[in-house]
Amino acid sequence: MSRIDGRTPDQLRPVTIERGWSKHAEGSVLVSFGDTRVLCTASVTEGVPRWRKGSGEGWVTAEYAMLPRATNTRGDRESVRGRIGGRTHEISRLIGRSLRAVIDYKALGENTVVLDCDVLQADGGTRTAAITGAYVALADAIGWARSKKLIKATRQPLTGTVSAVSVGIVGGIPLLDLCYEEDVRAETDMNVVCTGDGRFVEVQGTAEGEPFAREELNGLLDLAVAGCDALSGIQRAALAGEN
Amino acid sequence: MSRIDGRTPDQLRPVTIERGWSKHAEGSVLVSFGDTRVLCTASVTEGVPRWRKGSGEGWVTAEYAMLPRATNTRGDRESVRGRIGGRTHEISRLIGRSLRAVIDYKALGENTVVLDCDVLQADGGTRTAAITGAYVALADAIGWARSKKLIKATRQPLTGTVSAVSVGIVGGIPLLDLCYEEDVRAETDMNVVCTGDGRFVEVQGTAEGEPFAREELNGLLDLAVAGCDALSGIQRAALAGEN
Amino acid sequence: MSRIDGRTPDQLRPVTIERGWSKHAEGSVLVSFGDTRVLCTASVTEGVPRWRKGSGEGWVTAEYAMLPRATNTRGDRESVRGRIGGRTHEISRLIGRSLRAVIDYKALGENTVVLDCDVLQADGGTRTAAITGAYVALADAIGWARSKKLIKATRQPLTGTVSAVSVGIVGGIPLLDLCYEEDVRAETDMNVVCTGDGRFVEVQGTAEGEPFAREELNGLLDLAVAGCDALSGIQRAALAGEN
Amino acid sequence: MSRIDGRTPDQLRPVTIERGWSKHAEGSVLVSFGDTRVLCTASVTEGVPRWRKGSGEGWVTAEYAMLPRATNTRGDRESVRGRIGGRTHEISRLIGRSLRAVIDYKALGENTVVLDCDVLQADGGTRTAAITGAYVALADAIGWARSKKLIKATRQPLTGTVSAVSVGIVGGIPLLDLCYEEDVRAETDMNVVCTGDGRFVEVQGTAEGEPFAREELNGLLDLAVAGCDALSGIQRAALAGEN
Amino acid sequence: MSRIDGRTPDQLRPVTIERGWSKHAEGSVLVSFGDTRVLCTASVTEGVPRWRKGSGEGWVTAEYAMLPRATNTRGDRESVRGRIGGRTHEISRLIGRSLRAVIDYKALGENTVVLDCDVLQADGGTRTAAITGAYVALADAIGWARSKKLIKATRQPLTGTVSAVSVGIVGGIPLLDLCYEEDVRAETDMNVVCTGDGRFVEVQGTAEGEPFAREELNGLLDLAVAGCDALSGIQRAALAGEN
Amino acid sequence: MSRIDGRTPDQLRPVTIERGWSKHAEGSVLVSFGDTRVLCTASVTEGVPRWRKGSGEGWVTAEYAMLPRATNTRGDRESVRGRIGGRTHEISRLIGRSLRAVIDYKALGENTVVLDCDVLQADGGTRTAAITGAYVALADAIGWARSKKLIKATRQPLTGTVSAVSVGIVGGIPLLDLCYEEDVRAETDMNVVCTGDGRFVEVQGTAEGEPFAREELNGLLDLAVAGCDALSGIQRAALAGEN
Repeated sequence: MSRIDGRTPDQLRPVTIERGWSKHAEGSVLVSFGDTRVLCTASVTEGVPRWRKGSGEGWVTAEYAMLPRATNTRGDRESVRGRIGGRTHEISRLIGRSLRAVIDYKALGENTVVLDCDVLQADGGTRTAAITGAYVALADAIGWARSKKLIKATRQPLTGTVSAVSVGIVGGIPLLDLCYEEDVRAETDMNVVCTGDGRFVEVQGTAEGEPFAREELNGLLDLAVAGCDALSGIQRAALAGEN
Repeated sequence: MSRIDGRTPDQLRPVTIERGWSKHAEGSVLVSFGDTRVLCTASVTEGVPRWRKGSGEGWVTAEYAMLPRATNTRGDRESVRGRIGGRTHEISRLIGRSLRAVIDYKALGENTVVLDCDVLQADGGTRTAAITGAYVALADAIGWARSKKLIKATRQPLTGTVSAVSVGIVGGIPLLDLCYEEDVRAETDMNVVCTGDGRFVEVQGTAEGEPFAREELNGLLDLAVAGCDALSGIQRAALAGEN
Repeated sequence: MSRIDGRTPDQLRPVTIERGWSKHAEGSVLVSFGDTRVLCTASVTEGVPRWRKGSGEGWVTAEYAMLPRATNTRGDRESVRGRIGGRTHEISRLIGRSLRAVIDYKALGENTVVLDCDVLQADGGTRTAAITGAYVALADAIGWARSKKLIKATRQPLTGTVSAVSVGIVGGIPLLDLCYEEDVRAETDMNVVCTGDGRFVEVQGTAEGEPFAREELNGLLDLAVAGCDALSGIQRAALAGEN
Repeated sequence: MSRIDGRTPDQLRPVTIERGWSKHAEGSVLVSFGDTRVLCTASVTEGVPRWRKGSGEGWVTAEYAMLPRATNTRGDRESVRGRIGGRTHEISRLIGRSLRAVIDYKALGENTVVLDCDVLQADGGTRTAAITGAYVALADAIGWARSKKLIKATRQPLTGTVSAVSVGIVGGIPLLDLCYEEDVRAETDMNVVCTGDGRFVEVQGTAEGEPFAREELNGLLDLAVAGCDALSGIQRAALAGEN
Repeated sequence: MSRIDGRTPDQLRPVTIERGWSKHAEGSVLVSFGDTRVLCTASVTEGVPRWRKGSGEGWVTAEYAMLPRATNTRGDRESVRGRIGGRTHEISRLIGRSLRAVIDYKALGENTVVLDCDVLQADGGTRTAAITGAYVALADAIGWARSKKLIKATRQPLTGTVSAVSVGIVGGIPLLDLCYEEDVRAETDMNVVCTGDGRFVEVQGTAEGEPFAREELNGLLDLAVAGCDALSGIQRAALAGEN
Repeated sequence: MSRIDGRTPDQLRPVTIERGWSKHAEGSVLVSFGDTRVLCTASVTEGVPRWRKGSGEGWVTAEYAMLPRATNTRGDRESVRGRIGGRTHEISRLIGRSLRAVIDYKALGENTVVLDCDVLQADGGTRTAAITGAYVALADAIGWARSKKLIKATRQPLTGTVSAVSVGIVGGIPLLDLCYEEDVRAETDMNVVCTGDGRFVEVQGTAEGEPFAREELNGLLDLAVAGCDALSGIQRAALAGEN
């Protein structure tokens, strides 16, 4: 009873994290979860948004977008339509919140890091790949800013690591890291963001068809926690230069 | 160790659901969760969006908005700024998904119901009050459409009831139905949407400060399920004309 | 030869002004002209728009909007369309001008009051109800600002009262305070804004069908002046706490 | 006690109406009220907006705009700002309503005429010059459409003529056709749109400073009616080829 | 084998440059290339855009637009659509670049000149007429600013003159200054901007049909250089008051 | 006297064309000109824009965009700003025109190909790399459409090949294929689009500093023609599978 692509229910797709993809950005990663490919760049600037000035604290934010033909059917370009859709907004906000969960604003100082997550090719799990890759780009950007003395604090502004994975129930079976075809058929779909030490930063579960029971929720959370644990190993290896 | 407003940790604020608030809409409800007041109107139109035409199935969607001075400080009017913010988009999408979870599209037939949820006064929990009130407005609108034979199917298009509540950890204590002051201080914030029979439609938990552990998640879910159960009793009473 | 709702030609609909409707705003009023209900909130902020800085003078402005289902058929939400329609702009400007007519900018000092007039239910005369209610919300906000010493001048920034009413010719008969059905059938439609001492702040008459003669204009003005006089009595009673 | 430009209180500025200004438009007029110059073009198209299809009735609408440097200080281009201001919307609507007051929709048939009124140079009274000029452009466009048999009805779609003028009280004196400097200093400002037979299509009076009394209103209306009468003579002469 | 309008292949249309067209602008020109008429106004303001502050250097920029009925068929108003089309942007940028080519920023000092080029009637060559006319408006505005001591440098900020013309191959024949009908039929279309001493500021050639060979390009450039030379004579005459 | 990156004046940067980069698009290419990397995808849809329906002819269009951090300093996302800048519009239009120059619309039939050119990393020459890469993506998409019988004509819709290169004068020396640092310092900048047989599709030369003389133009054109010839060899090799 294997999956579309031959995986077992609790198996991630092949995940790669390619650091230093861009010559301009202070941190940049091309992350792949199977055929899903997201380019994550981290841009560091001195100063913070107006509402935060003088606080001595930094800020981290994110913008998510999809290239028009990242998907099977070409979508309208949001810049041409002149407005950003609800889904784009929602995912940008999720990525920003997830990364801020592991930031010590005081240690960051009055600096801003913007994470741009642009989906080059989509095959399910674009937001979880974006979070997982953006964390590594953020770590590189913070490393750069510390080496350039832009960040003056001696303590590390990153208080931990963060990764994310999707889980869902397809045909009654809980599955880890859904590809697009599985995602479309999922009765329940869940995105879970965890820290490297296994705690939750964000849990978002949606019944696409039937509402789901407490035991199903528990089963999905088990899968997700294990998946995030594997992803945080891959992040560590990438940052150690072992990928 | 009572709460700001004297409630126990597992106590809802006073909840009222006033049906028939508007003379124009097919269903309309003024719902209050304490000082949070949301006007929910349901508008029925024949026909469905283009992508759904000819399917024989209906559609339910929602738009959420806040009056500029619903909050303590006046916010810009989104119509004047010319674009809708991320938070507004996200909540509109959540309300729509939550209501669609209890809709039998075939029974609804090719009709569309739009739920407008306008927050007249905000004191925390606007999205959960909106879902809880919108369900009642939707039920009234569907009743109207059946009586007018717009809906032709003999079976009820509503497959269940749906309500929502917020829970959060404040000062280490899990609390039900946070008011604004509690919401601001919450370390973890969660919105849970349940059906009347206690299953989950949507679970959205966010660590505002520290990431949260599995046991904390479990404690919050227990509180939320009990809260939604109480809310679905209040919905039933309102629909039975007992409020 | 009575009207749709049984009134005589020179009779207002039942008018109520409910003060203190919102817990957040410095002034707030729910005003009803029959089935027309408008929530008017007044927000006071220190400071003035850039072009007025350093003048020692304050500013009063207004924004008018309609909830999508305030009317019989649901209208598009202007925030979703991304632009404000001509009618909305025009009425917002009218309300602002009308209120500024009774403001002593110097006495107000460099403070700004924004009046938000949101139509919760529409049945004709929404702009005149908005002006009439907004005046009371403005008076409350100014009272608040004086008590908080935000306004430092000892003289009252309000130089008078202001109210508004619609008049129109329907079936050849001049009528006061048109409801929606009358408004649709009116050959000539006029909105008149008066001060409490019976002078004009704004006179806007439009021939919807046949152009109108000077005598017709005179008859309509007589009706309107009497209507505004009655409305200013209702405003005074509300502010005196007698409603 | 003569005016800035030497006129008597009841004197119009030199008014010229130059027909056939554009080689493309079905009707086109360059109208001047003193230094105020407005280019009015009338564009005829077969068919009507969707909401009017199948009615057998035509439509007339208008768009007003100002070139950025029509005024003393350069204004932002509304196309560049990406939105139209309230004043522009309001005047466009006024011009459209004024012209529709003399249109027999049935005789026009399912044709649309769009009047573009672009202010090339502004010196007060741009909206009244626009209405006065647009009427002549409209008459020419209708003449063209009748000659081309686009309009099939034998009766004239124009049921009368329409012109407009501003009046105001400056230094206590009622003045006709205010130039910019007078307009700025006016205590009360009024725009009046009349048919050729002296009836009112639109009356818009605003107290810029002190509210105004009934007698002042009467005095202004007398001036305006006389001014419109003179303008309709100038229109007739232009259409007769006598200018 | 003469052209539609009887010209020889190397002949310009009648070109007129009317200075001082507007009473408000510091420089203003109504330029005609045959039936193409463009109103060019130059607005001088003290100060420069933020990115240039403190540099001691000035700035010159341009905005191009077409009245909706400047063309044979009425186009949508870009302010109403809420966005500027690609063509408008492109031409605005071209005009700005062309004028900046003859500006000594240091001599201009921290002043900004905005050129508004509004096409009142279009018959081909609107961008080349705009550049040619805008140069004269710019010269007048700079003359004004020098006389008012806004420009303090003693040396002339204009380092030369600039004019532009279109050329194209129609029916295999290279033609100068295409009118609309020729433009539509052109196989190759080229806009050339030259200084008064015959050097190039901008060369933009596009194959509308067949790609063009090097010899064809050379032939077109010869025509254009001669055309620009004639235009710069007309500009000089206009500035000398000889038109 | 070698260049920044050691090239001779007439040498291209290393150019790579990677076909089949995306699994979804009908044609997709990652093209590099040195550090400039552009992802070009070609999307084929049946049908044409409304204005072309029933003509039996196809359409080809392009959209160009830059990722926010493709450049050294992060730029605002155009989708977030809600409008597309002038430069983006201009380049999109250039790419579309360039590709249409080698299209036989009749042979394409009523099909549309949209080329999305997204700059992942910018180092000068993004528009010329986009055109050169987009041609190959277009060729692949047309091959796909012919194999799927979407294109029914037996003759090839591509009438030739097209490529583009920038040239410029830096320090008095004409250089081929400018990188960003050279581009910034160029006195004259030119983009040339050629067909494979050496004819011109588009010639755009701009004097960034001093206007340029006819001989300089000739020198730049010589360089560009040779560069395009080399690029069309690389395109042929890529399409033959030899890269």
